[in-house]
Amino acid sequence: MKNFILKGDICYSKTINEICCSENSCLICENGKSAGVYREIPEKYKEYEVYDYSGKLIMPGFIDLHIHAPQFAFRGTGMDLELMEWLSVQAFAEEARYSDEEYACRAYGLFAQMLRKSVTTRACIFATCHVPATKILMDCMEESGIVSYVGKVNMDREAPDTLRESDAYQSADDTVKWLESISGKYKRTFPILTPRFIPSCTDELLSELHKIQEKYDLPVQSHLSENPDEIEWVRKNVPDSKFYGDAYDRYGLFGRGAKTVMAHCVYPVIDEVERMKENEVFVAHCPASNMNLSSGIAPVRKFIDNRIKTGLGTDIAGGHSISMFRAVTDAVQVSKLYYRLVDNTVKPLTFEEVFYLATKGGGEFFGKTGSFEEGYEFDAVVIDDGLYPLLEYMTVRKRAERVVYIDSEATGLEAKFVGGEKVV
Amino acid sequence: MKNFILKGDICYSKTINEICCSENSCLICENGKSAGVYREIPEKYKEYEVYDYSGKLIMPGFIDLHIHAPQFAFRGTGMDLELMEWLSVQAFAEEARYSDEEYACRAYGLFAQMLRKSVTTRACIFATCHVPATKILMDCMEESGIVSYVGKVNMDREAPDTLRESDAYQSADDTVKWLESISGKYKRTFPILTPRFIPSCTDELLSELHKIQEKYDLPVQSHLSENPDEIEWVRKNVPDSKFYGDAYDRYGLFGRGAKTVMAHCVYPVIDEVERMKENEVFVAHCPASNMNLSSGIAPVRKFIDNRIKTGLGTDIAGGHSISMFRAVTDAVQVSKLYYRLVDNTVKPLTFEEVFYLATKGGGEFFGKTGSFEEGYEFDAVVIDDGLYPLLEYMTVRKRAERVVYIDSEATGLEAKFVGGEKVV
Repeated sequence: MKNFILKGDICYSKTINEICCSENSCLICENGKSAGVYREIPEKYKEYEVYDYSGKLIMPGFIDLHIHAPQFAFRGTGMDLELMEWLSVQAFAEEARYSDEEYACRAYGLFAQMLRKSVTTRACIFATCHVPATKILMDCMEESGIVSYVGKVNMDREAPDTLRESDAYQSADDTVKWLESISGKYKRTFPILTPRFIPSCTDELLSELHKIQEKYDLPVQSHLSENPDEIEWVRKNVPDSKFYGDAYDRYGLFGRGAKTVMAHCVYPVIDEVERMKENEVFVAHCPASNMNLSSGIAPVRKFIDNRIKTGLGTDIAGGHSISMFRAVTDAVQVSKLYYRLVDNTVKPLTFEEVFYLATKGGGEFFGKTGSFEEGYEFDAVVIDDGLYPLLEYMTVRKRAERVVYIDSEATGLEAKFVGGEKVV
Repeated sequence: MKNFILKGDICYSKTINEICCSENSCLICENGKSAGVYREIPEKYKEYEVYDYSGKLIMPGFIDLHIHAPQFAFRGTGMDLELMEWLSVQAFAEEARYSDEEYACRAYGLFAQMLRKSVTTRACIFATCHVPATKILMDCMEESGIVSYVGKVNMDREAPDTLRESDAYQSADDTVKWLESISGKYKRTFPILTPRFIPSCTDELLSELHKIQEKYDLPVQSHLSENPDEIEWVRKNVPDSKFYGDAYDRYGLFGRGAKTVMAHCVYPVIDEVERMKENEVFVAHCPASNMNLSSGIAPVRKFIDNRIKTGLGTDIAGGHSISMFRAVTDAVQVSKLYYRLVDNTVKPLTFEEVFYLATKGGGEFFGKTGSFEEGYEFDAVVIDDGLYPLLEYMTVRKRAERVVYIDSEATGLEAKFVGGEKVV
């Protein structure tokens, strides 16, 4: 039974407009779920073991809705390229190496180890098209203690020979083999259908994946409306789709029955936003990647106003940092540039809003996660912000903002719990 | 005699378009200056002591051209405000506390200690208007080993009563008293004239400061064209100045005889750029601050093309990070958004270009600093990038980019030399 208590300075979101802060308080874990935050330990929990993190910050685990595990090894290099060139020079070249299982073991082992030491507790992860390597990644993730969706990538066009699957049917067959081989194998690692993006998936492939999605009742992850050149490619080559997202939706790979998260959404047209809302598609906002690859700034305020489900992603290695702290401040920062340079009627995002997106907002993709409200999965990180000395008392709310900004790589991470299990 | 050798993987700029990389090589320090980089130790230096940093990166020290020491204590908090509101709620409120010398000792002690542990080797620093606290800051900086210009701030209008100096003459008198009291006191800490910015300086004050500048032959630092509201204030209230910078230039506080660095320059008009070039005014580009305070993106490519002297600044606490690594990647990132959102004929800045700005570019403000070319001041940082394991061999050039991106707070700093003295 996972019953215990964390004591410390607690902050978490209930709504998007406020961070609930509770100094020197207790967070109860009852059978792997939060039983709430209290100033004093209630009588019924008096017997629970107490982990004393007094003076330290306790936050919900952060949810990374978009990250490419096989790109981790080259993060922070080759950053002077734009998306389509970067894909071929950096991403595809590296991903081709994952046909080598020995390399996959080393690289994914390191990836999982570094992600374990981050503030991320749940993640949606792209692998490559290689089935053995994808299984290795799932093994590594299972061992990390992090809960994740992991996807074998599908791509049957517009990729180098070393990566392109021979045709839609082989790609679909491999996907089924992968799904069958991992069935029932893991307790915290789950498969997710992962067509790379429309440019690299034929209609036949999307049609096959649709059947697989229905048969196995899988969630879906992909990319959407990231970069003007990419969007233009879709417009020209899939002329009968009304907009980029429609090219997925025609094959049932865009929400509705299939829980779906789409990364980026930098340039969604109005109809696309409407469809995302109708279909309950999640957005994975990846601000660092959108800067690094010269993509632009996603209109996150528009998503929030339209009640589109939105979370954040690091998008390693379009993004260079694995830290969700960094994703939070990047999201606030670029929203200010959007306000200043694109549309000064659109208010910048506040720290409260983005903290919510990075925890409870993205957490919804995993069910009731990302908050300390009663009944939520017990995902928590403990941060020692004493590494950055304070001259005098500061409120928990201010300390939370401060540590997310100045300890951007979360070196102060002292403990991490996922679903009530201590993983760091 | 400061004669020794550093051995390791060396990278530095000679020109703006290339980073010179030399793996497993030797950097000679002769009497506090660089005597160049060699594959093998030349015969004449064979007797010098060797510090062996094999496998680690050796870069020139980074030059922070704009940082506010008294804002350090609240960095990373209250980040949801725009410039003019932020100034009154955050900056001025905190700066008023530096009338208390005990507080100044604690706060500046911490500031200098944290700056010492950063990759910065030289800095242009704003203090407050308080003379005793400014002297305390100079004491702290002298002890840190970092070379710095430190400025007592002048402001005789548009500031709260707790900070505003009573009039131009008192402000000038205090400045002279400060200068006289520190004359000859320090070996690496120098005074710099610091009118806060045009909105907070009357014409009388600028006129008095001009006399002081000439008498003491001082360099000058201030702010320029940061935010639309601020620029509009200057346009309305100093109607006879042709542009913002002209309001300084009329009083001889804008380059020419007076070596000058102006922070931000986000919205310079064409005549202003021309004048900066003519007068050899340095720009301190502060990308993080310009995001955080919703200011915008400075047209750095325009500065480079016009051969305007340009470096980077962290602008604590408009910027939240003291790390110049972070300033480098922020500068690259925002230049990509400028290209995408403002003017797609303006090429984004490359890592090479920004690495140059952060070292040799800004270094010129301090003389021959920021490079390992022969005769340059021996400022160097040693970075252990092994904290972020590599799966296989990577070139020094790639490792340099990688560590600047992913170790953004430079936690891998292993050693630091300033003018041939080891300070970390």
